[in-house]
Amino acid sequence: MAYQVAVCGPADCTEAERAAARRIGELLALAGATVICGGGGGVMSAVAAGARAHGGLVVGVRPDGTRATASPDLSVTLVTNMGQARNAIIVWSADAVIAVGGSWGTLSEVALARRRGGVPVICLNGWKIVDQAGTPLPGIDYVDTPEEAVRLALAGRGAP
Amino acid sequence: MAYQVAVCGPADCTEAERAAARRIGELLALAGATVICGGGGGVMSAVAAGARAHGGLVVGVRPDGTRATASPDLSVTLVTNMGQARNAIIVWSADAVIAVGGSWGTLSEVALARRRGGVPVICLNGWKIVDQAGTPLPGIDYVDTPEEAVRLALAGRGAP
Amino acid sequence: MAYQVAVCGPADCTEAERAAARRIGELLALAGATVICGGGGGVMSAVAAGARAHGGLVVGVRPDGTRATASPDLSVTLVTNMGQARNAIIVWSADAVIAVGGSWGTLSEVALARRRGGVPVICLNGWKIVDQAGTPLPGIDYVDTPEEAVRLALAGRGAP
Amino acid sequence: MAYQVAVCGPADCTEAERAAARRIGELLALAGATVICGGGGGVMSAVAAGARAHGGLVVGVRPDGTRATASPDLSVTLVTNMGQARNAIIVWSADAVIAVGGSWGTLSEVALARRRGGVPVICLNGWKIVDQAGTPLPGIDYVDTPEEAVRLALAGRGAP
Repeated sequence: MAYQVAVCGPADCTEAERAAARRIGELLALAGATVICGGGGGVMSAVAAGARAHGGLVVGVRPDGTRATASPDLSVTLVTNMGQARNAIIVWSADAVIAVGGSWGTLSEVALARRRGGVPVICLNGWKIVDQAGTPLPGIDYVDTPEEAVRLALAGRGAP
Repeated sequence: MAYQVAVCGPADCTEAERAAARRIGELLALAGATVICGGGGGVMSAVAAGARAHGGLVVGVRPDGTRATASPDLSVTLVTNMGQARNAIIVWSADAVIAVGGSWGTLSEVALARRRGGVPVICLNGWKIVDQAGTPLPGIDYVDTPEEAVRLALAGRGAP
Repeated sequence: MAYQVAVCGPADCTEAERAAARRIGELLALAGATVICGGGGGVMSAVAAGARAHGGLVVGVRPDGTRATASPDLSVTLVTNMGQARNAIIVWSADAVIAVGGSWGTLSEVALARRRGGVPVICLNGWKIVDQAGTPLPGIDYVDTPEEAVRLALAGRGAP
Repeated sequence: MAYQVAVCGPADCTEAERAAARRIGELLALAGATVICGGGGGVMSAVAAGARAHGGLVVGVRPDGTRATASPDLSVTLVTNMGQARNAIIVWSADAVIAVGGSWGTLSEVALARRRGGVPVICLNGWKIVDQAGTPLPGIDYVDTPEEAVRLALAGRGAP
């Protein structure tokens, strides 16, 4: 069974986030992992472009009811027509979840991934969640580089 | 049109959170607002019990495929069979969103509510979301009492 | 636990279907059953109006992302934002399903109700499903009057 | 953008339906079309096997919350965890819909595809939908062979 990694992040992102997402897509494709993303702009289109540049398989799970707005670099486009509830499908389909950058939609994906449990959840340059005392909640790996994000995402995969 | 307030929170909660949720249910029912919740235990059953004790209308939006596990205090039980993706339905249906306590599911509801925008989002005793610099993200009212939570939730309602 | 009956049917319906739906709403309200419907026009608004005229509880499960287009006779409006996939929620939430009139959306509800199984499925003036040999598929009660539809829908309810 | 064809049908099917589904998968793969299916047994696994035998891309959109039960011939597995409501995602994602054999789940897919409109809907050996007078409803192509089903499904695709 193919190893599927979700890469989440805002459509409205910084250049550094876009570059990191593209690099993550490249590394996942080179490792033979399938990329699952939201199929839109920003982080989503950058990871798709990076993966496609290296022959990777990229699935876009769209929130709206048409394929017209999807990134051109998707191998497969799923039309859910269920808005941000599609975020749950992205994280349930993944063997690991990487978030790049911060947004409310991205945060919902991180939360749903942790709610599901059992898969690595990795954040690069994203928002942090802290409890009442200001302590970060456990179960999220905060990393600084695309390479570290991908290494942790693939750690759960057995030897090929 | 009835004013609908979502009250979110963990099934596994503290006694203080349970008491706060019950009080919020009472206050919403007394104000004539409909309560929308997840229909399960903990905060969900406490807000339902509080609202029902004062004749309020309480809707439970269940994640699983049966009504057997629903709280006994619901006026209406919706069976979504879509797991935590049902959190999106709860927040989209609401004129205001109150979260009591912290959990990953609750956080996903706060995130989806802020992603939607346009409605008050109020947190009582919950987790906090901060950016890279440690600054809390805007758009969430952190409150200390059920009374303040309900006051903010009803602020957007026109005069009855 | 309240007895919940789904009443399905097209927004674009005949006058006879509208009258039948209204009568079904009246009878369900008089019997103390909660009505679950799509919350839109045609059959949906007629059943809602009938039930509300007799003090019944009516839940509308909307396909779109706003409450602005909902029928004015709903007690509760759920905003699913998931288009016709919301039909599954309507039938999963019901102790019995009544379809009035024919449309592709209504047919999907009948099919999903039969796929679920275990609840009465009753069609008044609707389309029929036949196998290759022209034989109607089992498990659907085709009836001629609102009274018969409601009687069959309530048959599974224990004595009050 | 890849041309995506949904192939629907029961997990519990006849040998003839299984053979037809496999042939449809082969023909779609040879034509370069992506197959979208439910990812389970019967018609679903047969179309997946046929497509994979010819190097085709096959997407399975699963109703449950795990990948453990998915067909081994899928290129991509989406975990929706939303039961038969996932049928809507299958038909919304497709440029054409082919149904092989009859079941209530399959009928819901045909109904949702016609409700959506704008794409060919083709039935091979399936149930028929008739109005009160016994006349088949328009908009469905009933065919006798896999070849005819695929020809109609691809008719809307422009020259490659």
